[in-house]
Amino acid sequence: MNPPQELITCLQDMDNFVIASHVFPDGDTLGASLALGEALRLIGKKAVSYCIDGVPESLRFLPGNEKVARTLDGLGGNGSLSDAILILMDCNSPDRVGIDGASFKKSIVVDHHLTEKPFGDIRWVAPDIAATGLMAYTLIKALGVELTRDMAMNIYTALAVDTGTFRYSNTTGWALAVAAELVEKGVQPSFVADRLYNDWSQEKFLLMNEMLHSLVIRDGVAIASITLDMFNRTGARPDDTENFVNIPIMVKSIRMSALFRQVGARQWKASLRSRGDVNVAAIAQAFDGGGHKNAAGYKAEGELGEVKARLLEALGTVAV
Amino acid sequence: MNPPQELITCLQDMDNFVIASHVFPDGDTLGASLALGEALRLIGKKAVSYCIDGVPESLRFLPGNEKVARTLDGLGGNGSLSDAILILMDCNSPDRVGIDGASFKKSIVVDHHLTEKPFGDIRWVAPDIAATGLMAYTLIKALGVELTRDMAMNIYTALAVDTGTFRYSNTTGWALAVAAELVEKGVQPSFVADRLYNDWSQEKFLLMNEMLHSLVIRDGVAIASITLDMFNRTGARPDDTENFVNIPIMVKSIRMSALFRQVGARQWKASLRSRGDVNVAAIAQAFDGGGHKNAAGYKAEGELGEVKARLLEALGTVAV
Repeated sequence: MNPPQELITCLQDMDNFVIASHVFPDGDTLGASLALGEALRLIGKKAVSYCIDGVPESLRFLPGNEKVARTLDGLGGNGSLSDAILILMDCNSPDRVGIDGASFKKSIVVDHHLTEKPFGDIRWVAPDIAATGLMAYTLIKALGVELTRDMAMNIYTALAVDTGTFRYSNTTGWALAVAAELVEKGVQPSFVADRLYNDWSQEKFLLMNEMLHSLVIRDGVAIASITLDMFNRTGARPDDTENFVNIPIMVKSIRMSALFRQVGARQWKASLRSRGDVNVAAIAQAFDGGGHKNAAGYKAEGELGEVKARLLEALGTVAV
Repeated sequence: MNPPQELITCLQDMDNFVIASHVFPDGDTLGASLALGEALRLIGKKAVSYCIDGVPESLRFLPGNEKVARTLDGLGGNGSLSDAILILMDCNSPDRVGIDGASFKKSIVVDHHLTEKPFGDIRWVAPDIAATGLMAYTLIKALGVELTRDMAMNIYTALAVDTGTFRYSNTTGWALAVAAELVEKGVQPSFVADRLYNDWSQEKFLLMNEMLHSLVIRDGVAIASITLDMFNRTGARPDDTENFVNIPIMVKSIRMSALFRQVGARQWKASLRSRGDVNVAAIAQAFDGGGHKNAAGYKAEGELGEVKARLLEALGTVAV
């Protein structure tokens, strides 16, 4: 659970940080970045949160979200990026943040994903920790910085998102104890939960209905799809689909849920979720993707029927 | 937050307890009763959990649930009920547990509901506490009993149910800190959450999909229907529809949700739900129904198109 000492030392000794969130950002990568950025600035560092995709509307309640940079121009301060330290937050490869890691002075990885790529001068990869937000919390404590209400809000949201408000199997006593501390710092759990779960646009709701209509259940596996046509018909946006793949998992007999979201003419983003021992990371890896045991994803190319068939074929070889 | 001293003293001094849960029991009333019962037995008391309705199938994972008595016969031990202390758990009036409070030696109320009736020799009513399970936790601590894994499980479930796993506005830092302690005692948060939220039958899920497919949204009002045909097609049961009318309420712009469930050839049960100030009780009353401001219902007769049209007509006269 403890960060490497050289990571703490680097944060203490260096002065200029770019904290990068992954593409298609969620509350964990952004909350962790915003919290750590605020802490670093409080101890006199230059620290900028960066996300090439910006902040989705649903997460614009995160304190400081308006400061997230969408371009690297000027992020090197007076010097250039070669003076700055890159921190990859909630991912471990520079292609996940859409930038060239080599342009930085040094690079740090802070991530809790199972699949690793060999990038980063300093790496802290902790798959046992429920949320990268908890890793940011640990770093902030190690730096001796007092938690502010804003940091607490960002960390709580990160934790709430990645544990489904303490419903997923990654929820530990420590995660709940940290949540308790964050609430004492001023977080209202129901405010965060309402933003995450009861703030749907009508367009998103209509898209969910279309997705559910596309859903086929076979042998405990649910497969659904969202096409570009569905986005057009409903007016919903790609980030509206973030938790859709989890919905079929509420059915007791469904061990795995897959969602194919169309991103181009013959291009799809596949999201996989599973219950218990079903390891979807292994399946995603078979398609050059990655993730956690119960939540993973990959990119697929072809007609919808083809990409579905390839998944079903893979399920035949990987025990589900 | 502290129980009255005379309550602790009574638990310490008396020997024979009947801990009663309210009718239509939920995880809070049963979890609280089972946890306190176990603690009392550990310090040498006779303590029986009682619920006239028994334990619903969905809560049969609660440790000790099989010992919940559905009758008072023989609960007075060697003597009669007049030797026993009645503890009302999660309610404050004997009619809520379906028994005659006067037959007991003494009565105790442990409850967190706002509405009170003047019953009980010793009363601890604490509306600020999220769950009666937390009140049981406090009593167990006050008795100096070490929490067992089973007690932790029962208390955690009580807390999870009444806070929606820490999503509702009653969630405090204390509630989360207790949850953390309960997890350290061996509770798996995801096990409890799966029992509470991810235990749907496939039939129920398919019926929800059909209902959503029937849904029409107009001017912030969502109207859906479930026909006898849909029940036949999916194999779902009427009680599967219990929370379906709440689903559209997660959409920010929907102020009212109506669900028509067919119960006969031309007979329907209408359920209404609303957000904030929209008073659906007034609408239900116009159709000889009733309920609360944000949750009401009525019976309707006619073809589906007719009963829907009559509701829309009523909405034109009642401000929604």
